[in-house]
Amino acid sequence: MNLILLRPDDAWSDPERVRLMDHRADHIRLQLKAEAGQSIRVGLWGGCQGLAEIVNLDATGVSLLVRLDQPPPPRHRFDIVLALPRPKMLRRIFRTAAEFGVAHLHLINTARVEKSYWQSPLLKPAKVVEALQAGMERSRDTVAPQVHEHRRFRPFVEDQLKEICAGRPCWITDQGAPLALEAVPAGNAVVMVGPEGGFVPFEIELACDTIAKQVHLGGRTLSVDTALTTALALGL
Amino acid sequence: MNLILLRPDDAWSDPERVRLMDHRADHIRLQLKAEAGQSIRVGLWGGCQGLAEIVNLDATGVSLLVRLDQPPPPRHRFDIVLALPRPKMLRRIFRTAAEFGVAHLHLINTARVEKSYWQSPLLKPAKVVEALQAGMERSRDTVAPQVHEHRRFRPFVEDQLKEICAGRPCWITDQGAPLALEAVPAGNAVVMVGPEGGFVPFEIELACDTIAKQVHLGGRTLSVDTALTTALALGL
Repeated sequence: MNLILLRPDDAWSDPERVRLMDHRADHIRLQLKAEAGQSIRVGLWGGCQGLAEIVNLDATGVSLLVRLDQPPPPRHRFDIVLALPRPKMLRRIFRTAAEFGVAHLHLINTARVEKSYWQSPLLKPAKVVEALQAGMERSRDTVAPQVHEHRRFRPFVEDQLKEICAGRPCWITDQGAPLALEAVPAGNAVVMVGPEGGFVPFEIELACDTIAKQVHLGGRTLSVDTALTTALALGL
Repeated sequence: MNLILLRPDDAWSDPERVRLMDHRADHIRLQLKAEAGQSIRVGLWGGCQGLAEIVNLDATGVSLLVRLDQPPPPRHRFDIVLALPRPKMLRRIFRTAAEFGVAHLHLINTARVEKSYWQSPLLKPAKVVEALQAGMERSRDTVAPQVHEHRRFRPFVEDQLKEICAGRPCWITDQGAPLALEAVPAGNAVVMVGPEGGFVPFEIELACDTIAKQVHLGGRTLSVDTALTTALALGL
């Protein structure tokens, strides 16, 4: 944790004083080995961040005097549309999106997404939040990516994609495309990343008929997690 | 698997004929659902790749007629020096290096690497090969990254780093450095990626006194696996 995330429903006694009694208190005491009088980096979930002075700490909890005077870091310039990956990868995908400060992560269905993936318990809100939080704590962010699920490909592309793009270009990753994502003009964009095995030709065509343009992420076939991180790195 | 990797010590009856009787045979039969007469993509570990015609297949194994007429894909332009990550991440690190076709992966000790990490069973040669192979099968590569271990930081930097660089620039990632890795001149290079928490100032100084120059990977603190993938993406 490079940032302790506070929540509006924590035990606040006034707008600057909060008491933590859970794993965060343990983390401050045992991992950070912090002592009363020291300051640690904190942030309010969905809000600002800053320093908190440790007013007192013992085995029962930690009391903090909080100054939230800095805005969250900027959002990544890419919003992501991602074919729902297999459950094994989900936690890492959420963490990565949060580490990079993605504003919107759209999980979509495609021909090569197995139906059972949508039943994964890792898609339950509490699990999603937990994974996002791991990324936010890492990269000192207080704003979580907004995660959206779209279980039907055609309606998503035909009825929603253009509106989501809102004037931004839409890049769909497709191995063998003539244009590299790293070579597109800088600026905000929506980037679509396919499943293992890629988008099928119909999906590429429909997206391109609507708004998307094909780009590649280098000459190699990449795993979904590597492809997502690569796309986000190229948008730094 | 986007490529079936063959090995010199497989059951070759002549230089073009091999019989597989292990999980690769099962994969060809059950996952690829291939039939006799069809061709599949194969490569020789450390050598060329091409297509193999399935001469026959049944529950006992698969016989292939192999044409290895294509060279391996090119190596990534970055060699990597990486602070040994915690064991939980090792498998993914090896897979990622192999997916990108890294030629040399140097695992080093640094102040923030816990000593116990060097005892991980995941560093045993058979485990390393298994993880590299997962990446190679994904990205259709036949050449594995060469993995080197350096258990003492100072001798590595003072006595070996310059020789390893062999005239190439050396970039050491350090949050807050004024130069972005994406902004350095294109070309082959050695990139050093630190542990969770980063390199300590002494390590940065020693590396920079020897040959390295500091670069950043964007403004955010990233996990080691995300940082490695980001560095490799920026070298595409």
